[in-house]
Amino acid sequence: MEIVGFVAAFLTTAAFLPQVYQTWKTKDVSSLSMPMLSMFFVGIVLWLIYGISIDSPSMIAANSITVVSAFMLVYFKLKYAKR
Amino acid sequence: MEIVGFVAAFLTTAAFLPQVYQTWKTKDVSSLSMPMLSMFFVGIVLWLIYGISIDSPSMIAANSITVVSAFMLVYFKLKYAKR
Repeated sequence: MEIVGFVAAFLTTAAFLPQVYQTWKTKDVSSLSMPMLSMFFVGIVLWLIYGISIDSPSMIAANSITVVSAFMLVYFKLKYAKR
Repeated sequence: MEIVGFVAAFLTTAAFLPQVYQTWKTKDVSSLSMPMLSMFFVGIVLWLIYGISIDSPSMIAANSITVVSAFMLVYFKLKYAKR
């Protein structure tokens, strides 16, 4: 069953890479919601803590990478948003 | 520790609601990446299966709601994307 977890981890982690790339490339953050990005970032940090506590390799792997993607999207949103 | 999981579940689940709302309201899907949305949707389905298999209440709760949000974003992207 850890395999299903790892495939899930791969997909939800990898899912953010095209978004990070597209946002970095186009600097278009208009349709990204800031409440979404910030809540998501904090949520991922907590999932990482939870994953460590229940000793789930899939969750630890997924969330330690996703936290970086989530952080970058928050950063892009702050940087490129119309003031 | 299940509390940390539930807060994480709440945040990452709730994070998608402003995004779903904003996308529904503005019909602006230009800065949402389709590869992201589709991979994310499949990933969430697998996390749900994994959560059931490791018997994690937080994961089951979070992913059964998030799967609906993810599905709606895929649907909006298909519906509102420039053809």
